[in-house]
Amino acid sequence: MAKLAVPSMFSMRHFLVLSLALNVSLILRTTYYESEEGSKRFCLKKKMMADADSESVIHKPRLAISSTTLTLGNSTRADHPGPGGKERVINLDHGDPTMYERFWRQMGDKTTIIIPGWQSMSYLSDTSNICWFLEAEFAKEVVRLHKVVGNAVTESRHIVVGTGSSQLILAALYALSSPDADEPISVVSAAPYYSSYPSMADYQKSGLYKWAGDAESFDKEGPYIELVTSPNNPDGFRRRSMVNRSQGLLIHDLAYYWPQYTPISSPSDHDLTLFTVSKSTGHAGMRIGWALVKDKEVAKKMTKFIELNTIGVSKDSQLRAAKVLKAVSDSCEQEKSKNEESFFKYSYKLMAQRWKQLRAVVEAGDLFTLPQFSPAFCTFFGQKMVPQPAFIWLKCEGDIEDCESFLRGHKVITRSGKHFGASPQYVRISMLDTDETFIQLLDRLLAIQERQ
Amino acid sequence: MAKLAVPSMFSMRHFLVLSLALNVSLILRTTYYESEEGSKRFCLKKKMMADADSESVIHKPRLAISSTTLTLGNSTRADHPGPGGKERVINLDHGDPTMYERFWRQMGDKTTIIIPGWQSMSYLSDTSNICWFLEAEFAKEVVRLHKVVGNAVTESRHIVVGTGSSQLILAALYALSSPDADEPISVVSAAPYYSSYPSMADYQKSGLYKWAGDAESFDKEGPYIELVTSPNNPDGFRRRSMVNRSQGLLIHDLAYYWPQYTPISSPSDHDLTLFTVSKSTGHAGMRIGWALVKDKEVAKKMTKFIELNTIGVSKDSQLRAAKVLKAVSDSCEQEKSKNEESFFKYSYKLMAQRWKQLRAVVEAGDLFTLPQFSPAFCTFFGQKMVPQPAFIWLKCEGDIEDCESFLRGHKVITRSGKHFGASPQYVRISMLDTDETFIQLLDRLLAIQERQ
Repeated sequence: MAKLAVPSMFSMRHFLVLSLALNVSLILRTTYYESEEGSKRFCLKKKMMADADSESVIHKPRLAISSTTLTLGNSTRADHPGPGGKERVINLDHGDPTMYERFWRQMGDKTTIIIPGWQSMSYLSDTSNICWFLEAEFAKEVVRLHKVVGNAVTESRHIVVGTGSSQLILAALYALSSPDADEPISVVSAAPYYSSYPSMADYQKSGLYKWAGDAESFDKEGPYIELVTSPNNPDGFRRRSMVNRSQGLLIHDLAYYWPQYTPISSPSDHDLTLFTVSKSTGHAGMRIGWALVKDKEVAKKMTKFIELNTIGVSKDSQLRAAKVLKAVSDSCEQEKSKNEESFFKYSYKLMAQRWKQLRAVVEAGDLFTLPQFSPAFCTFFGQKMVPQPAFIWLKCEGDIEDCESFLRGHKVITRSGKHFGASPQYVRISMLDTDETFIQLLDRLLAIQERQ
Repeated sequence: MAKLAVPSMFSMRHFLVLSLALNVSLILRTTYYESEEGSKRFCLKKKMMADADSESVIHKPRLAISSTTLTLGNSTRADHPGPGGKERVINLDHGDPTMYERFWRQMGDKTTIIIPGWQSMSYLSDTSNICWFLEAEFAKEVVRLHKVVGNAVTESRHIVVGTGSSQLILAALYALSSPDADEPISVVSAAPYYSSYPSMADYQKSGLYKWAGDAESFDKEGPYIELVTSPNNPDGFRRRSMVNRSQGLLIHDLAYYWPQYTPISSPSDHDLTLFTVSKSTGHAGMRIGWALVKDKEVAKKMTKFIELNTIGVSKDSQLRAAKVLKAVSDSCEQEKSKNEESFFKYSYKLMAQRWKQLRAVVEAGDLFTLPQFSPAFCTFFGQKMVPQPAFIWLKCEGDIEDCESFLRGHKVITRSGKHFGASPQYVRISMLDTDETFIQLLDRLLAIQERQ
């Protein structure tokens, strides 16, 4: 984990950043406190986004927002009781990708799906396919999107669709373990690892597989399964297998290997790779993920798992996902001819803005630090880019030992580092929430630093 | 299991039925062999249905088919390569409810759903609900439908939505077992039981629960979970708990407790009850089921299971299911005012026709026997009715010891009784397939009997 050096005295640059940050904070507060309770709009975004835009990493972007007001796309969510105010609890514990809603609204009817009541009634999709519940249209668009983005080899792969990639992780554990083994196969992942891996592996008390903790300290002989998450959840770094022994079976969870989060270096080419629409396009409510599987018998066993678990995967969501993936591929292919921003360019820029604003705010004080990433060449954008992960892996510095409790005291709900096999000095914070929540987070972080 | 007595000599009634059956067979064959290969239509249905109609159990129905030809609704399914012919393999191993497609086609746009690309993106539905991924509209329609049909008490119940009722069975096993118990809790069900129960309970080699076989021979002391399927899959009989000891935890699987299959005697009122759209409305491809749960802690644990298993349930399918359930309730409430057949009357009549035809064919010989059911008062239809299950629980008589192999030899794929904890003299055959496949089944059964 890269750490920021915290100087004892502010440099001239720090003063400048602090000045900018305080300015932003003042504008934010004035706007919040002046806005009427219950109003679904607030002003400010334009200035803040314009500030970030002027230093855009790629090029000067065309702003998606054309007025000084922003209608909040997600105002009905029950955990978001009001539009603002310092008393509001901001819940960024989970990585709900509602940030993308605005893009899909702008797309209008292009991804609207119409399903008549008599359609897709059968359990079956294609009984000639190993994954008999896989909709052909969805499979076609998965292959096309990977080709367009260049992030995965699909040739000589079996596609297995799942109810989100969570179900596919469980299906993969089932498929890679042996019912005749003397003991459960060890499941490891390098810390900080995705916080759900330990409970997903152990909640059934399965005799097939068992969570065995941090891959770096794993030294047991014999077969094991290693979950390789790249870019990693929570910290955003690229990952390779850590254990690297002969009897290792690897599951590559590449949920975040998309151009808005990380430079695409080459098409991934592993034995078993997982993706999900939740993080690629933001459609978490669909619960659709897919696996690219080299070995036929593994694909068969994964399919069997899903058959016993849920007798297939929602056809409605597969058809809708096909339409959304098609729109993403179309947007990439037509970007030049139609002079419209592709989904990935749009979302890359939004993430770039957010990370720039976040770094400005965090660097204004010495209470928090962020991971530092090196730029790398992205084959999709055709230039060097800096990773901008879907989560903030924030470290509380100084004498704050429990960062999660500290932030909770300031009404920011995050996930403690201890759930990821790391120190409680760290927390994971979602970067994919609505604009409103993200700006409130920045405001809250600034206010905390001012008070210290 | 009720058995038919097989007389050594034919009675006058038998000769009449045999004569009718042979007549039907001849018409069938003439039609099949005269029809062009590859054609998606065949003639006959009108006469056959009219024959059955004239003796309808409820009243003389208005035929849903108004011409002498029937367009096949399901001609694209990969396991149905052609429209007819005696060489075609008929696969009735699984209970794919494609029979209902015609009804939903006739409903036109009433159940068409339109989902814009920006809708339902979040993981969350209602965070104030125990089941935080339950769509409010779906929950509302579940409550309304149970009230309209009178088949379940919903007051003081928590609704947990699942990816089909399969996921809810697993969630219930998880919720009712204890992670601190010395040994896995026994899971039992009275034979013949649903063939997937043993593998669903054991495929994860869980330390929480373990399949312990037929409930009737279960005599182990201590806590246990009993799966009570009523009406039962495969045999269609109404069921109550068999073990009936103090430490029993019951899961009532009422997938078939709907008026088209069995008389509704009273609203079910159990601790944990499961339903599914697959069998109630025929929308198996949606993968939507629901549980009515009395105990708050059990509902919480079931929700936790689904969170770890699939992080919720497709919102698209929940919204579509809400629309379909609403249409069913509307059709029941508006039956008199609009003079249109309700979904349940339509499907009841179709099942009644099929069972009448099936009994005529089976009783024409002495090779097969069927369960016999007593009529009972149905509160939904307001009169006495005979059960007409979703599956045929067929017994091969005489010296046929393996009924599944015997029928496979005649290109009819069924599921052997041995998978249900019963004798291989029995097979389970789906009654919910398309009209074409069902008539071909009758034809095949007649032909088999003729040859013996």
